[in-house]
Amino acid sequence: MTRLEAARAGIITEEMKEVAAAEGMTPEMIRDRIADGTVIITRSTLRTNIKPLGVGRGLSTKVNANIGSSEDASSPEQELEKLKVAVDAGAHAVMDLSTGGDIDAIREAILMASPVPIGTVPVYQAALDSKNKDKSFVELTAEDFFDGVEKHVEAGVDFITVHSGVTQQTMKKMKDQGRIMGIVSRGGALTAEWMRFNNKENPLFEDFPRLIQIAKKYDVVLSLGDGLRPGCLSDATDSAQIDELVTLGELTRLAQAEGVQVMIEGPGHMPIDQIQANMLLQKKLCNGAPFYVLGPLVTDIAPGYDHITSAIGGAIAAASGADFLCYVTPSEHLRLPDAKDVRDGVMASRIAAHAGDIAKRIPGAMQRDIEMSRARKALDWEEQIRLSIDPETSKILRSSSPPSDADVCTMCGSLCAIKVGSKVGVAATEG
Amino acid sequence: MTRLEAARAGIITEEMKEVAAAEGMTPEMIRDRIADGTVIITRSTLRTNIKPLGVGRGLSTKVNANIGSSEDASSPEQELEKLKVAVDAGAHAVMDLSTGGDIDAIREAILMASPVPIGTVPVYQAALDSKNKDKSFVELTAEDFFDGVEKHVEAGVDFITVHSGVTQQTMKKMKDQGRIMGIVSRGGALTAEWMRFNNKENPLFEDFPRLIQIAKKYDVVLSLGDGLRPGCLSDATDSAQIDELVTLGELTRLAQAEGVQVMIEGPGHMPIDQIQANMLLQKKLCNGAPFYVLGPLVTDIAPGYDHITSAIGGAIAAASGADFLCYVTPSEHLRLPDAKDVRDGVMASRIAAHAGDIAKRIPGAMQRDIEMSRARKALDWEEQIRLSIDPETSKILRSSSPPSDADVCTMCGSLCAIKVGSKVGVAATEG
Repeated sequence: MTRLEAARAGIITEEMKEVAAAEGMTPEMIRDRIADGTVIITRSTLRTNIKPLGVGRGLSTKVNANIGSSEDASSPEQELEKLKVAVDAGAHAVMDLSTGGDIDAIREAILMASPVPIGTVPVYQAALDSKNKDKSFVELTAEDFFDGVEKHVEAGVDFITVHSGVTQQTMKKMKDQGRIMGIVSRGGALTAEWMRFNNKENPLFEDFPRLIQIAKKYDVVLSLGDGLRPGCLSDATDSAQIDELVTLGELTRLAQAEGVQVMIEGPGHMPIDQIQANMLLQKKLCNGAPFYVLGPLVTDIAPGYDHITSAIGGAIAAASGADFLCYVTPSEHLRLPDAKDVRDGVMASRIAAHAGDIAKRIPGAMQRDIEMSRARKALDWEEQIRLSIDPETSKILRSSSPPSDADVCTMCGSLCAIKVGSKVGVAATEG
Repeated sequence: MTRLEAARAGIITEEMKEVAAAEGMTPEMIRDRIADGTVIITRSTLRTNIKPLGVGRGLSTKVNANIGSSEDASSPEQELEKLKVAVDAGAHAVMDLSTGGDIDAIREAILMASPVPIGTVPVYQAALDSKNKDKSFVELTAEDFFDGVEKHVEAGVDFITVHSGVTQQTMKKMKDQGRIMGIVSRGGALTAEWMRFNNKENPLFEDFPRLIQIAKKYDVVLSLGDGLRPGCLSDATDSAQIDELVTLGELTRLAQAEGVQVMIEGPGHMPIDQIQANMLLQKKLCNGAPFYVLGPLVTDIAPGYDHITSAIGGAIAAASGADFLCYVTPSEHLRLPDAKDVRDGVMASRIAAHAGDIAKRIPGAMQRDIEMSRARKALDWEEQIRLSIDPETSKILRSSSPPSDADVCTMCGSLCAIKVGSKVGVAATEG
C-alpha cells in the first residue's frame, strides 16, 4: 500500500507522524492532505536511512539544490562536496543531475552519503546510455526511456522528474506561436528532438501508466517536469507552457488515482506581475498538487546574480502558493556551479522560502524573526549571530570590523538608533 | 522660480528636456508630472556639474547607495572609493551619511567628485556639531537643527532627509501601542530623544515652513524621512508608522504649495504580503509624491544577506509603485559596509529596480531582456556578457570554467538544451 492509498484508507503511518511533528501539524492533517494530493512525502521505500520530507499545502516551503557532473567537470569528489555543502547550508532535498563521467557511480555515492531525499532526471540516463550503446539519442527506443527510469528507481532515488507533458500537440502549439528561446529544459529538449526525429509521441506521455507502476513500486514521487518552461521573460505564460500544464494536470489525476504521489515542476523565467497568476493556475489545473518551481527568474539580464533574481521570484512564488523552490546559483547561464555557488544558492533560496512562509502565514514562521528582533533590541550580538540564517557569515562580517563600543556596530557607533532610542522608552510588544 | 513653480506655469526647462530624453518621455509629460508633484528632478541649483535626475511616476526606478564614515571608520579616502564603486556599479544617487571624522571635509570631497546627486541627513551634522560645542545632543537648540540643514544646503547637496514626521503625537501612539524594536532610524532616534528630554515638539515639524524656505533657495528636494519606520517585521504597518505617514502627507502639501519638491521615505522591514498595501497607502496619503524605500527587508533573520532580502522587498515595492530604492548591503546590521559591499548592494538593488520596472510596464524596460534572450538563443557569448547587468562578473564566471565546446557552457555541455532544441525548429518571436 502506498502512502496515498494508506491515507485514503484513513491510516496514519509513522512517516506521517514524523512529518507532522516536523511541521508542527497534526498527523490527521498530514494524512488528509496526502489523501487529497495536496501534500506529498518524499522518500523511496528503499531509503530507510533518511528522514521523510513533507512538501505541500500549509507546510513550510522547502528548498532543493541541484548538483551533478557534466562532461566538462565530472569528478565524483566534487559532487560529494557539493552535496555536503548543500545539506550543511540547509537544503531539504538535492537533485543529482549528473551527465558526465561515471554517472551511475556518482549517483550511488550521493545516495549513500545523503541525509536528504535525492531526485534525478532519468532521461539523462537514457541519453548517456545511448552513447555507451553507440547510438544517437534519437535512435533510442521507447523501451530505452523506461529502462533509464527503472534504473534510477531501483537505485533508490526518492523523486524523479519525467517530462511527460512534452506532447506532439504542445510542440505544435509552440511552433505555431513562436518563441524567442524555444525549449530550455535539457530533458524537454532531448525528448522533443527524439519526437521530431522519430515522428512519434513522447513515450513518457503515451505510456504514462507504465511510469506510474514503476514509481509505485517504491512509493517514489513523480515530479512532472515542465519541459516547455519559459526560458526568458518574453516566453512566459505562453500557450505552450500552459498547454503543457493542462496535460500535467491530467497526468496528475491518473497517477493519484493509482495511488502514486505527484508534484508539478514550474517556471522558469517570468516577470514579477505574472507569478501570482501562474501559482493559481497550477493549483487549479493540477488538483492542488505541490508546486516545485525553478526560480522564477524575474529578469534575464543578471547572469552572475541569478541566485538573487530567483530569490525575488521564488519569494513571490512561495508567498503565492509555491511549495518547493529549486535553487538557482550565481553561476546559472555561465558555468557548472562550484561548492561556493551551491552554498550561495541554497542561502538565497532559503531566504526566499522563509519570506514566502511569513507572507502565506505558515504558523510559527515569524517566530525566529521575532526572536532576532528582540536580540537586536537588546544589543545581544551573540544571540543575533546564533539566530542568523547563516551564523558563520554573520560572525565573520561582524568580527571583520570590531566596534570600539561592543554594544553597537561600526555602522552607527555611538549614534546607534537602538541605543539612543532606548531612552525614549517604547514598551516591548509581541508585535 | 523653482522647477515646480516653472512647471505649474507651463514652462518646460532645459532640465525637464534632459530628464525626458533620459526616460524616453516627452518634455510635456515630465513637466505635467512635476507640476502635480508625482515626479521630481533632483539637483541643487548650486550643482551645474551633474546631470539632473528624474524620479517618480512612470519613470524607471532609481537606485541610491548610502555611503559615509562612522566614528569607527572615518577615512575620507575610503568614502571616495565607495562613491566611485557605487557610481561605477550604476547607482543613480548617493547619500553621504558620514558621522565620523571631519564630516565637512568628507562631504565636500564627495560633492566635488560625484557625477550623481548627493543626499544627506543634516541632523547628523547637528549631532556632531553638538560634540564640538561640548554639548550633549539634547542640549541643542531648535536653531542648531536649522543650522545643520542650512550648512548642508549651502554646501550644495541635492536632497536632504528631514525627520519632520516625528511628532509628540506620533511618539505617544508608538508608546501606547508598543513595539519590539522601537525607533531604528538614526535621525528619528536622535530627534525623539531630543523631544523627550526637552519635552518640546520636533523643531523640524513645528517650524516646517522654515525648512521649506531653506530648501527652496537652491531647489533642493525635501526627502521626508520615516523616523519611525519599522525596524522589524513585527513592527511593520503599525499605528506609529502610518500616523507618521499621514503627517508626511500633510507636510508634502505644504511644501508643494510653496513650490518645493518632495519625496517620501519608506520602510524598512516588512512581510511580503504588506508591501503592496504600503505602496498604495503612501501614494494616496502623500499626493502621489515619489516614494523612496529602504528595502523593505522581507525577513529579519538574514544578516550577511540583506542585499538579497531587500532586493526581494525592493522588487515587489517597485512593481507596486515605489520610485526610488535605497540599497542595502550584505553588511547591514553587522558593520559599516566596505567597497565590495557597496558594489554588491548596488547590483542587487539595480536588479530589483529593473524587475520592478518590467512588472509595472515602464515602456522599453524589457528590451534588454529580449536582446539577452536572443543572444542566448544564438549562443552568442560575447553579446550575453555585453548585455549583462555586470559584464565583468559574467566574464569572470564564464572564463573560470572553459567549456570544451565554445558554443555552450560547462553546465550542460553537449546536452545544452538550446543546442539540442535548435533542431526542433521553433520560430523566433518578439514575445
